[in-house]
Amino acid sequence: MLTINLVCVGNLKEKFWQDAEREYAKRLSKFCNLKIIEIEEANEAKEIDKILAFEGKSILSHCKGYGILMAIEGKNLSSEDFAKEIQSLSLETSQITFVIGGSYGVSKEVKDKILKKISFGKSTFPHNLARIMLLEQIYRAFMINSGAKYHK
Amino acid sequence: MLTINLVCVGNLKEKFWQDAEREYAKRLSKFCNLKIIEIEEANEAKEIDKILAFEGKSILSHCKGYGILMAIEGKNLSSEDFAKEIQSLSLETSQITFVIGGSYGVSKEVKDKILKKISFGKSTFPHNLARIMLLEQIYRAFMINSGAKYHK
Repeated sequence: MLTINLVCVGNLKEKFWQDAEREYAKRLSKFCNLKIIEIEEANEAKEIDKILAFEGKSILSHCKGYGILMAIEGKNLSSEDFAKEIQSLSLETSQITFVIGGSYGVSKEVKDKILKKISFGKSTFPHNLARIMLLEQIYRAFMINSGAKYHK
Repeated sequence: MLTINLVCVGNLKEKFWQDAEREYAKRLSKFCNLKIIEIEEANEAKEIDKILAFEGKSILSHCKGYGILMAIEGKNLSSEDFAKEIQSLSLETSQITFVIGGSYGVSKEVKDKILKKISFGKSTFPHNLARIMLLEQIYRAFMINSGAKYHK
């Protein structure tokens, strides 16, 4: 079974995001071994460069297998193409690690090391909502790849 | 105060989506008069054309002021450009109506009548999550337009 790691900066404070995450994690448990790794958010008082360097080190230490960075400058894929991407990666690797940055994005080092970048279009979304959107797209990808019917 | 109507097909079944909607509605109440109008979902047993025609009639009857259809073929805007769009529309109209279709999208009639189409990129999202994404982007737009700091 494919392992999907989701490396995120900071935790989900609101209960509704936690519950949404739990729901998608439950649905995904049929298709993959999902691990959600929450990186400690750096203290806001520091300079942005230092925050990103601190978070980046931690992010990279948790990147196992094939890394995919969620970044606004990344490639915007249709759900079908995203599903194909996961399908073909699953033939090459046993682990995929998705990374969602924090409030300030991610460091240059993270961007340089994780070559594969995917975006959800040009809009900026908060990290908590982006996490749910990504979980939904991963679930949708597995549903597409299994030939199951899944509603919009 | 600008009125923002959000016309959606079907309701939010899961409590976490309802709570997320409530949270963004609360935040938006500072900036606009938000009205969420839930159109009855057509019976799934009917043919798709009939479902869309039934829902479409109801959608159009609730379209007040300037209409914007959320559609995958629409224009994908950055949050800043979306904010500018709302800003300039608010000078022309007192009401903006956003439309999110149901599981089968919307009828040709709705697409023909609502000329302005916006998308959140190429990914397909379920209507419940799309509703939260839209509320977040509207809130982000008001925050951008008011010059407030708002985190990713």
